[in-house]
Amino acid sequence: MKRIYIYDSILRDGAQAQGISFSVEDKLKIVKKLDSMGVSYIEAGNPGSNPKDLEFFERVKKLDLKHSKIVAFGSTRRVNVSVEEDANVQSLLRADTPAVAIFGKSWGFQVKEILRTTLEENLNMIRDTVVFFKSKNKEVIFDAEHFFDGYKEDPEYAMKALKAASEGGADCLCLCDTNGGTFPDEIYEITSRVVKEFKEDIGIHCHNDTGMAVANSIMAVKAGAVQVQGTMNGYGERTGNANLTTIIPNLQLKLGYSCILEESISEFTTISRYISEIANVLHDDRAPYVGNYAFAHKAGMHADAVNKNPSAYEHIAPEAVGNTRMFLISEVAGRGALLNFINTFDKTITKDSPYTREILKKVKEMEFKGYQYEGAEGSLELIIRKILGKYKSHFELGEFKVLVSEPPISSANSSAIIKISVDGQEEMTAAEGNGPVNALDNALRKALKRFYPQIKDMKLTDYKVRVLDSDSATAAKVRVLIESTDGKDVWTTIGVSADIIEASWLALVDSIEYKLIRDELGQSE
Amino acid sequence: MKRIYIYDSILRDGAQAQGISFSVEDKLKIVKKLDSMGVSYIEAGNPGSNPKDLEFFERVKKLDLKHSKIVAFGSTRRVNVSVEEDANVQSLLRADTPAVAIFGKSWGFQVKEILRTTLEENLNMIRDTVVFFKSKNKEVIFDAEHFFDGYKEDPEYAMKALKAASEGGADCLCLCDTNGGTFPDEIYEITSRVVKEFKEDIGIHCHNDTGMAVANSIMAVKAGAVQVQGTMNGYGERTGNANLTTIIPNLQLKLGYSCILEESISEFTTISRYISEIANVLHDDRAPYVGNYAFAHKAGMHADAVNKNPSAYEHIAPEAVGNTRMFLISEVAGRGALLNFINTFDKTITKDSPYTREILKKVKEMEFKGYQYEGAEGSLELIIRKILGKYKSHFELGEFKVLVSEPPISSANSSAIIKISVDGQEEMTAAEGNGPVNALDNALRKALKRFYPQIKDMKLTDYKVRVLDSDSATAAKVRVLIESTDGKDVWTTIGVSADIIEASWLALVDSIEYKLIRDELGQSE
Repeated sequence: MKRIYIYDSILRDGAQAQGISFSVEDKLKIVKKLDSMGVSYIEAGNPGSNPKDLEFFERVKKLDLKHSKIVAFGSTRRVNVSVEEDANVQSLLRADTPAVAIFGKSWGFQVKEILRTTLEENLNMIRDTVVFFKSKNKEVIFDAEHFFDGYKEDPEYAMKALKAASEGGADCLCLCDTNGGTFPDEIYEITSRVVKEFKEDIGIHCHNDTGMAVANSIMAVKAGAVQVQGTMNGYGERTGNANLTTIIPNLQLKLGYSCILEESISEFTTISRYISEIANVLHDDRAPYVGNYAFAHKAGMHADAVNKNPSAYEHIAPEAVGNTRMFLISEVAGRGALLNFINTFDKTITKDSPYTREILKKVKEMEFKGYQYEGAEGSLELIIRKILGKYKSHFELGEFKVLVSEPPISSANSSAIIKISVDGQEEMTAAEGNGPVNALDNALRKALKRFYPQIKDMKLTDYKVRVLDSDSATAAKVRVLIESTDGKDVWTTIGVSADIIEASWLALVDSIEYKLIRDELGQSE
Repeated sequence: MKRIYIYDSILRDGAQAQGISFSVEDKLKIVKKLDSMGVSYIEAGNPGSNPKDLEFFERVKKLDLKHSKIVAFGSTRRVNVSVEEDANVQSLLRADTPAVAIFGKSWGFQVKEILRTTLEENLNMIRDTVVFFKSKNKEVIFDAEHFFDGYKEDPEYAMKALKAASEGGADCLCLCDTNGGTFPDEIYEITSRVVKEFKEDIGIHCHNDTGMAVANSIMAVKAGAVQVQGTMNGYGERTGNANLTTIIPNLQLKLGYSCILEESISEFTTISRYISEIANVLHDDRAPYVGNYAFAHKAGMHADAVNKNPSAYEHIAPEAVGNTRMFLISEVAGRGALLNFINTFDKTITKDSPYTREILKKVKEMEFKGYQYEGAEGSLELIIRKILGKYKSHFELGEFKVLVSEPPISSANSSAIIKISVDGQEEMTAAEGNGPVNALDNALRKALKRFYPQIKDMKLTDYKVRVLDSDSATAAKVRVLIESTDGKDVWTTIGVSADIIEASWLALVDSIEYKLIRDELGQSE
């Protein structure tokens, strides 16, 4: 099996994405995760550009990494300055990493317009800088910035830039499509020529500005590149970098290359979500391989066919990347998809059962109001149980009042009063919280505790708000999704209302009812 | 300029995406938009699968379309049923469209496992169905489902399926990578052979399961395909269909094909956002060409270089697709990017001014608390004005109280009391609303009206909520973004707090202060 060296730049190029900002702790967590996956290189920052990076380089040295080399990233020396006198080169050295990535220009236009120096001096800058780091016993990767744009304008100068790095002793020459404007056939042709003319390892670094960063990386590998640079989840400036969560399964599962550890591929979806969490970015539901909906079937016909044979509409088994198949419930879905869901907890219902028709009707009615049960299967199960006559409510709401005060009248700024009844017994209580939803949640749990002590095992693990018709501004309808767990199960419930408090309340009530019903049935699957 | 026929399937394949559901009105709006762009074909639904589609086909006939043909989509006749007796074929005919797309199997495995018939009968099903629709004077596109998977298993049978459609008189043979698992070089090679062996127009239909649908479509065009099927914004089942918002600029602006009207390309970003709005799906900020951040520069060095010459880090001019360049403000950004922003309303401040340093420090401090000024430039401008000494506050909050009641005590379920003061004059008032934020917004406007009558021109046009640390559940920090307009300007402001009411309040206050300051300065740029 041919080896491909995966080079992740989430901590450097990824951090240049809109909305992403990593703390030192975040960076260390990501390093540990990438190392445990068997990523070969982790580009961890530009020590010259950011003081936070220096602290990180100090701390990362103390980690005991098994598979990954940490790479510090920086530019060639400046124009007409010796490497010894160049502050950025020196801070790159102080990062004290086993490998460095040095980027330099390979496009005459950039040399003249941006660096404002001669073509010859640029080649000296590349050569000198590589020589310097090789003399310090570093592994040196030369990133030829704008290589493909440069090559298309003046192939010989672009090749000279690589030659300068090669003469300096670089270990790897990485071809960068910095502006992301190159097409797959061009990438293949140009990379093929470079592979033929240089003995060094060749790398590829693509951006997604024409939506082809993944394909471009794959075509470079087919042309002989052995190092693939990109970022997990594709984070990066503008439209992002080549997405390693797509490239790695493409190479390893479909083309038979070895990129990362076998066992990491089979939990790839979890790893990708973990990184979304640390980056604090919504996980891309439609991402190939690792998206929540990568194996979700909606059209009735497709769902039916996948039931007959999964490879009918799946290019790969979801389990291979630790993902799961999903049948979405919606008006386009036939009864088949809904039935799959019903049968997960009641196997006696058939496709032609009048229950199935009634449930479908109810689901469509709720969707019209803004509900969406894709991803809120807890609430869907409750609807189905109601129609099947297998639902009893565990408490009734009398009333609640929530008061928000500015300035706060107690330690928290919100307080809630709630009155509920359980089998005719009333309970009235109050609680405070950070914000009205939190206060209401606290009051409801407090009121229910004496009737259902088991709800103390239950906690809310996620709370999401989506504004549905955001052009109605503060009077808009909102959809609230609440994820809960009792340590065994995880379930998600939904509420929709023009009032965020009511929407949250509906989702909270479903969440608690779900837990109580499941406990009674002794089910924990 | 060689013509490529764009075939959009957002109303059919797009509607199979998770979270998408179009009303008949939505569909008609999309048809009008696609027609005005010069899209050649609009695949508008499967009349056999959904009653809503029948109403749509009735109404779409009455539109006076200039550029697009409406296409009804359906399968070949069923096994061992004549076309005349096949209910789906008949409802396809009743849709009364100028063109039909007929999908049929071209992969032996699918014929045997899913259709459960003979290879020969499948060919008859294809031929018979095409013959039938040609006899009704329809333009017929044959969609060869799973063509590439079929070809890789048994090239001759896949070619026979195309041949059956060709013999039936099909106008176009469309090669579908239904499971999205094919690679660009395979697409190129296989499409080239088909183009050589058939005289009919060849189409391509890709899915994004390996992240290469755009590249695959482009490679098929390079191999001679002239019809490209996909969906605007890439909506579609699982990971989505080939994204036409990427493919069209790639073909028309970079490869010189003619796909849609010239003037539509230059407003392509607006069109793409319009479709996100109708689909009620968050616009993909990172989408090539049309994403909010497709031309956003964050790294200080990149922003500086783009100032010198845009093509340094842009593969195309943002104006070509109606998008705009953006400099993101953040800790990775150098002072250069921030300065660009400051200079948009105060040209006297230089990069080395102590103000610039102080503003950068303040921005970083706020980002640490969860603020993010990318996309909230209204609030950023207020911060800068405060530091420059060009800010005066127009009102002071005394206090507010918001009460939410269930069951409601009046027509709305929330009421707010607010006390403010303007130059020492106090005003206390109350208002109700749908939910606490709406009640507070109403009360604040009511209180301010007598001091600042111009705020009646102002309205909130968007309200977004993002939960920042969603694993703290209902006690999580939230970020609220409010977009406002007074008919001339549009501005966005931000508030962050663990309490959604307070976060909304902070964003509301900024929004109103922004309006009042702008009015005083007589600025409306």
